[in-house]
Amino acid sequence: MRTAPGGQRAHDVRRLRDILRATVRGGGYERGQLPSEIELMTAYRVSRATVRAALALLRTEGLIERTQGIGTHAVLEPVTTSLPEAHGVMKPTVGSMFNHRMRPRELDRSMVPAPGAIAERLEIAPGTPCLRLEYLALHEDEPLALATNYVRCPEAIALRDTPFVSDWYQLLADSGVALSDSEFVIDCEPADAPLAAALGVREGTPLISMEQIIYDLGGRPFDVAFIHTRGERFRFVSRASSRELK
Amino acid sequence: MRTAPGGQRAHDVRRLRDILRATVRGGGYERGQLPSEIELMTAYRVSRATVRAALALLRTEGLIERTQGIGTHAVLEPVTTSLPEAHGVMKPTVGSMFNHRMRPRELDRSMVPAPGAIAERLEIAPGTPCLRLEYLALHEDEPLALATNYVRCPEAIALRDTPFVSDWYQLLADSGVALSDSEFVIDCEPADAPLAAALGVREGTPLISMEQIIYDLGGRPFDVAFIHTRGERFRFVSRASSRELK
Repeated sequence: MRTAPGGQRAHDVRRLRDILRATVRGGGYERGQLPSEIELMTAYRVSRATVRAALALLRTEGLIERTQGIGTHAVLEPVTTSLPEAHGVMKPTVGSMFNHRMRPRELDRSMVPAPGAIAERLEIAPGTPCLRLEYLALHEDEPLALATNYVRCPEAIALRDTPFVSDWYQLLADSGVALSDSEFVIDCEPADAPLAAALGVREGTPLISMEQIIYDLGGRPFDVAFIHTRGERFRFVSRASSRELK
Repeated sequence: MRTAPGGQRAHDVRRLRDILRATVRGGGYERGQLPSEIELMTAYRVSRATVRAALALLRTEGLIERTQGIGTHAVLEPVTTSLPEAHGVMKPTVGSMFNHRMRPRELDRSMVPAPGAIAERLEIAPGTPCLRLEYLALHEDEPLALATNYVRCPEAIALRDTPFVSDWYQLLADSGVALSDSEFVIDCEPADAPLAAALGVREGTPLISMEQIIYDLGGRPFDVAFIHTRGERFRFVSRASSRELK
């Protein structure tokens, strides 16, 4: 895009794209169906070129597509989960994905010697046996996330012997393992070759990356996890209030 | 990577990469300096090929590089911010990036008619004048995020006339605008051409994408923002406790 007269248009395109992307992903269009180009030009007071450029960006990202007879529509609606539910610290709400809507495909369930950096986070000696439980989290039969957990003993023994049927927090509950706190370090990363293969996405696809530490009722860490989530299928909602902190 | 005998190695590479990535980005290596290949082979009980493949993935992602005379080291340490601080609902801690460590480069400060989807979120009639305040957030003189805010009146008038010198929450405070709640919808996206240009990254770079709504003391939304953050320079920490919910 040129930066002289076209420069203004580049900003316009970016701003329109932001609004359309949020509306599409938030389920703001009935049946995911976008308004026509003329309707968008009028609603946003921009040129046809701007509308087309913004839609092209969303198409490139894979969020929308044009189908003959239907028009331009969202490809899929992402799963939205509240951050406290994702943390595992609360009973899932009725509609939540943590309410028996997920199914795991186990990739590994082995006792392994805890490598140094893991042992450090778990506050155990390097080489102490821990359970490595790794799985693909499926939602509506599609891979949503890949998670690798390292669990220290004694929780490791309880988990090792319990069937894993829906989501991680249900497994903890079924194993009789209680948790108090959960901490996420969240960032994003491009899917490299092994991750892309496991999650069924193109290499380079942005993923939400989380390192999680889960603590027992005494405040002792017992589970360290690395979680990679398909960004286009997933969103977190986080709400904070200044009133809670008074 | 082949899936027969090499299949096991692909998992090994991925798992080692996860641990090294978290350790590098968490500042776990002194001066960002990684251990030697032999030290990594021993600590993680893997082959040299596995170590090299994991390091190659981190190099491709741009997290580490090899410098003659120094060895393999982290390229940069990301800024870590706690999610409640990013929400703007608490006084920033001493070391926080929200403690006068940011500087804005303003891209726009105009009164514009609120487009439909924005007006809806702000609970005003479409076309009502609102303030569009867009800026690049600089941290240590590097672009960290691009944010486009739409603010309704009367807050818009107060903000419009206030100098913007560090971060958004300082601007709200300087304008005499109080907030109660803040909500983020968080996902990730590839940097498209206009965003990549604005943030100074390669097209396709993963970004953390946030839609924020900020509410006044009466619970009325007054600010809708679209924020795009450079994932490689930035991380969130979120901590939740089941005890708080009893």
